[in-house]
Amino acid sequence: MNAQIITIGDEILIGQIIDTNSAWMAQQLNANGIAVTEIITCKDDKDSILSAVERALSQGDLVLTTGGLGPTKDDITKKTLADYFGLPIAFHQPTFDIIEHIITRHGRTLTAAHHAQALMPVGIQYLENQMGTAPGMWFEKDGKVLISMPGVPYEMKYIIEHQAIPAILKQFKTTPIRHRTVLTVGEGESKIAEIIEDFEDGLAKDNIKLAYLPGLGRVRLRLSTSGENAEVLDTLLDAKVEELKTLIPQFIYGFGTTTLEEAFGELLKSKGVTVATAESCTGGLIAHRITSVSGSSAYFQGSVVAYANEIKTNVLGVKSETLGEFGAVSEQTVIEMVQGVLNVMKTDYAIAVSGVAGPTGGTAEKPVGMIWVAVGNKNEVRTHCLNLSKDRMKNIEYTVIFAMNFLRKMIND
Amino acid sequence: MNAQIITIGDEILIGQIIDTNSAWMAQQLNANGIAVTEIITCKDDKDSILSAVERALSQGDLVLTTGGLGPTKDDITKKTLADYFGLPIAFHQPTFDIIEHIITRHGRTLTAAHHAQALMPVGIQYLENQMGTAPGMWFEKDGKVLISMPGVPYEMKYIIEHQAIPAILKQFKTTPIRHRTVLTVGEGESKIAEIIEDFEDGLAKDNIKLAYLPGLGRVRLRLSTSGENAEVLDTLLDAKVEELKTLIPQFIYGFGTTTLEEAFGELLKSKGVTVATAESCTGGLIAHRITSVSGSSAYFQGSVVAYANEIKTNVLGVKSETLGEFGAVSEQTVIEMVQGVLNVMKTDYAIAVSGVAGPTGGTAEKPVGMIWVAVGNKNEVRTHCLNLSKDRMKNIEYTVIFAMNFLRKMIND
Repeated sequence: MNAQIITIGDEILIGQIIDTNSAWMAQQLNANGIAVTEIITCKDDKDSILSAVERALSQGDLVLTTGGLGPTKDDITKKTLADYFGLPIAFHQPTFDIIEHIITRHGRTLTAAHHAQALMPVGIQYLENQMGTAPGMWFEKDGKVLISMPGVPYEMKYIIEHQAIPAILKQFKTTPIRHRTVLTVGEGESKIAEIIEDFEDGLAKDNIKLAYLPGLGRVRLRLSTSGENAEVLDTLLDAKVEELKTLIPQFIYGFGTTTLEEAFGELLKSKGVTVATAESCTGGLIAHRITSVSGSSAYFQGSVVAYANEIKTNVLGVKSETLGEFGAVSEQTVIEMVQGVLNVMKTDYAIAVSGVAGPTGGTAEKPVGMIWVAVGNKNEVRTHCLNLSKDRMKNIEYTVIFAMNFLRKMIND
Repeated sequence: MNAQIITIGDEILIGQIIDTNSAWMAQQLNANGIAVTEIITCKDDKDSILSAVERALSQGDLVLTTGGLGPTKDDITKKTLADYFGLPIAFHQPTFDIIEHIITRHGRTLTAAHHAQALMPVGIQYLENQMGTAPGMWFEKDGKVLISMPGVPYEMKYIIEHQAIPAILKQFKTTPIRHRTVLTVGEGESKIAEIIEDFEDGLAKDNIKLAYLPGLGRVRLRLSTSGENAEVLDTLLDAKVEELKTLIPQFIYGFGTTTLEEAFGELLKSKGVTVATAESCTGGLIAHRITSVSGSSAYFQGSVVAYANEIKTNVLGVKSETLGEFGAVSEQTVIEMVQGVLNVMKTDYAIAVSGVAGPTGGTAEKPVGMIWVAVGNKNEVRTHCLNLSKDRMKNIEYTVIFAMNFLRKMIND
């Protein structure tokens, strides 16, 4: 079964707010076997709303809308929908009672706008909203359903979870949809596609779709299928995930919505080891990413952000001769940074980075984007030289991902 | 002038990613006098893309699409658009050269997928993409323009800023819109609105609109106006900005698209002073933000991320007695962290932070969200205790903004 989403609001169309409601609703619908086939964001005016509603209802039997309901601008959406479904508008005492209850509880006084808010289409089904004044509205005609909800995220979420989804499942027969997401790092999508070509070609006969979702330094592989029996789908997808694990084990760091830093933390915790970082051009971002995970104090001790050369020598003990002979951006320097921070922080492992993040500061010998990374413990240090772009933030972000993955691979070896 | 946006991608429709591209593009278009009237998110298949494109082109003369361009099999956008505009597809050497350059620079090998990626519609205009392998594509028919871009945000942004907007402004006549954005930190929008109430009331007579764009710890005030004579608009807006400077000087840290860390860096540079940070719960994010600015080595020496207490004592010299008596999250500890890092890094100023970022780890006495911040030099240390939320990332982000502003105010005093 398919659904369409309409989000109503000029504030989205001028880019003032990002539409996060649609993604959340899409997740809820998908989890219940309803595929969203289109999302339209339209203006807060009658013609725009009507045009979007007509298009959405022509494509399927279920449309969810958010926005355009509230004390200041609710009239347009409510009236437009009532007209479209051929319903009159009348004062609705139960809605007014809720508004009155909420307003007086907050010590405010009722205004004419609150009375206008209680004017509702006659003959619709109400979806209770315990989080705000505007109820959800279930419109129905010729077997097609449109559910209108306020745009405030926690109000919409309450209505979806407690009212809309149960009512939808009662009314419509849905086919289960299942997904698995396999998270990879360290290789581009073309290379992965090449390695798993046969696997991918074999998916069609099981009605499974594979999508590549690339990000900086990472590619997510999403397997999707639908069918009558959810258990069968789960078994099928789990088997495919197992197959992927044997095909590209070196690139997989996790599944679902796990972040690289979470997977990194889980690995360190499972091995009972600790880590510290010594950062020059990444400026503390590796430490920040590691500590963005709650509970990271179990394996992360700290970091020395050695931006100036004196900090590299004074705090980390990098030799002045090393800096003099090879420079701050060199294999020798990052090796000594790893050794220095292992010593200062007394950890099992360390990561060190030094490079030219750019966009300026490069030389012929050490151009912008040249970044040395070292990972190691007291017995072994591994190094790698990255040659990246001229984009400072992209270079920093990519290096952080590379460095965490570099140590992940060393620990796994 | 109007425009429509289409974002292509099943990953948006299943709610796996939130469409942030549309809001960003809408902002850029609006800033250049182009109003977005509808956004459609459609599936990665031929019929869905065609249907969305037909609708969008029927509503106006300019359509921007993102997504559905990339090396793997799930990408059919290019072929669908070429068919729609009646163009053949052929191997495009310049595109292939760029792909080859990027792939080999990263030490990867070219695959058949990379060759397929260089198959391009014949007769389009190419919009250079210095951030990735897929160029933007400018299709044109009967005076209507469709611009197709990759969905990776930094690639799309590069193409919009450097290629698409200049080309659009050359092709279409738009009524000048002028904006000024005044950046504030340290006060909420209600309070600012109260202070500038009379100013705001006086804007209507000059046809100027004021929008409050709140963010974490900051509020941007955007003044906008439009009219035939751009010079008149500029003069008018500049006068209003001068007025704001006299009304809320204590909150303004910059203008336009300046970031707080850039303004912070400019201030340090202009005073010829240096800074270092000692970070516990912010985990290096203050250092990262400071060093995200190119040229920050002129005033930033480094940071000690002292996540573990031993690092606070061993590296920063915080007394064991202080930690024992007052705890790591205390005014005394952050004062000693400031003094310690001033000593280690030999800087003029320092920032120190220690707190409970959450969501767990709080106690009755020191709940989640309690974060001590200190800023100072060798003569004076100022402290402040924040009481924030249970949201780890929000707490960290807010603290970074607060801390930079706290030192900014001290230096300005």
